[in-house]
Amino acid sequence: MRDFSSDHRWLSLNTATVRKQGDLVEIIDACARHGIRAIDPWRDQVAAVGLERAARAVREAGLELSGYCRGGMFTSDAARRGEVRDDNRRCVDEAKALGAPCIVLVVGGLPQYSRPGSETSKDIAGARTQVEEALAEMLEYAKQAKLPLAIEPLHPAYAADRACVNTTKQALDICDRLDPDRTGMLGVALDVYHIWWDPELMGQIARAGQDRLLAFHVCDWLVPTRDILNDRGMMGDGVIDIKRLRAAVEAQGFAGYSEIEIFSSDWWGKPMDEVLRTCIERHRTVV
Amino acid sequence: MRDFSSDHRWLSLNTATVRKQGDLVEIIDACARHGIRAIDPWRDQVAAVGLERAARAVREAGLELSGYCRGGMFTSDAARRGEVRDDNRRCVDEAKALGAPCIVLVVGGLPQYSRPGSETSKDIAGARTQVEEALAEMLEYAKQAKLPLAIEPLHPAYAADRACVNTTKQALDICDRLDPDRTGMLGVALDVYHIWWDPELMGQIARAGQDRLLAFHVCDWLVPTRDILNDRGMMGDGVIDIKRLRAAVEAQGFAGYSEIEIFSSDWWGKPMDEVLRTCIERHRTVV
Repeated sequence: MRDFSSDHRWLSLNTATVRKQGDLVEIIDACARHGIRAIDPWRDQVAAVGLERAARAVREAGLELSGYCRGGMFTSDAARRGEVRDDNRRCVDEAKALGAPCIVLVVGGLPQYSRPGSETSKDIAGARTQVEEALAEMLEYAKQAKLPLAIEPLHPAYAADRACVNTTKQALDICDRLDPDRTGMLGVALDVYHIWWDPELMGQIARAGQDRLLAFHVCDWLVPTRDILNDRGMMGDGVIDIKRLRAAVEAQGFAGYSEIEIFSSDWWGKPMDEVLRTCIERHRTVV
Repeated sequence: MRDFSSDHRWLSLNTATVRKQGDLVEIIDACARHGIRAIDPWRDQVAAVGLERAARAVREAGLELSGYCRGGMFTSDAARRGEVRDDNRRCVDEAKALGAPCIVLVVGGLPQYSRPGSETSKDIAGARTQVEEALAEMLEYAKQAKLPLAIEPLHPAYAADRACVNTTKQALDICDRLDPDRTGMLGVALDVYHIWWDPELMGQIARAGQDRLLAFHVCDWLVPTRDILNDRGMMGDGVIDIKRLRAAVEAQGFAGYSEIEIFSSDWWGKPMDEVLRTCIERHRTVV
């Protein structure tokens, strides 16, 4: 396992972590101040400053990207299928313009939450079928752009409203069906928050292998979790044995960024520099 | 699938559903008023009125039990192992005195939450090993009392603090290891709240079969869920396709009670009779 204790060369900042403290250009400036070399920006943060300005700021700061958040939300009623397809194609185009190595996919849950206005449904099996069909279509477009897609299995607590792909096994089963030749164009983004509980995790990480492991995200699971969406913990403040999980992905050859993504009302309330200083310190000690 | 629309013969009330509105004897009286024929009482509610008085009240009301909640919390540090064993043996004795058909097991998460005061740990794999060892020991005692044990897989959101058995497959794997001969003494309690999201659920219910399906619990998953412990929904108010799940367990031959267990600050704030009337109406229409 790589030694992170003496520098933060392999720390990437998911820009949602400080989304309330500044716009994307301000976040990029802060990364420069703290010697952070990579980010994973969100589409809405890019849109807020404009795609060209965002791309220029990334370039001028000499930043790499560890991903682009996020494509997906594939589930909708029939009337919205074209909208879903076009939205995801734009996402590929944006990721290409920004120089992202992959797109992180949050696949969507039941249609009424994934694409508001869609007809209400309780058919999660149907949602899963729809995800696979729409993802297959997006993959064709992404292949032409040479932009890999990373399915992020989300914690089962988000199965209804955010993603009906909820385990690493389920995500890898989709990868095997849609990309049986392991072209490198389809894989997974593993976030410790979503997968730490899974009794089959270690075997599935080994199954994924280097070519399917496209991104690795860290934060922590707090006890109690007061809000299922926005009470994620700073690494070290919760119950996840993060080093054990990083060791497992690195044992497969993963050598990319360890990306910090924390949705937290608490941390959004602190100054950006304090958050980044804490991220760096925890990256060196507990990740 | 059984027709529930014209009566509530197969409704059982888990007494936690109205735990704030009255003690166990008052809950039993209310069940009699509403023609509810079965309950699943909690140990603390039994203790509050006394075991003998509880057993007499159950007998005099002519109630059946659909289970006894709950044994388990197997994980602890070394100093507390004896305490855990004795506590679970007492649970078996109480269940026997009450005439329960099985004990519902919430197995415990990390030791510091399962048995407060235990040393802090992040070793969930170790917790799982400990669960299996302690459960094997409890099973020997339960067999002598002819009291079946029902492992309840809990939603992964509770993996840290309540139960590190989080999928039906994981629970059935334990059953197969500890009870390979399928004696009927070990099985699962399936609560739709905990399992509805699982992409492998239907196959695992078929794998369980009638002899491993010891209990079936219903409530609903609300979107948004404002509190991960105490914001469970009344059946029909959330996203779970409950009828589809009941059809799946009944297709295996399950013919027991459909037990309503709702932990909800909202429903705890309403009069007991209103809650029971609503339970009966929803049991007939959406379960």
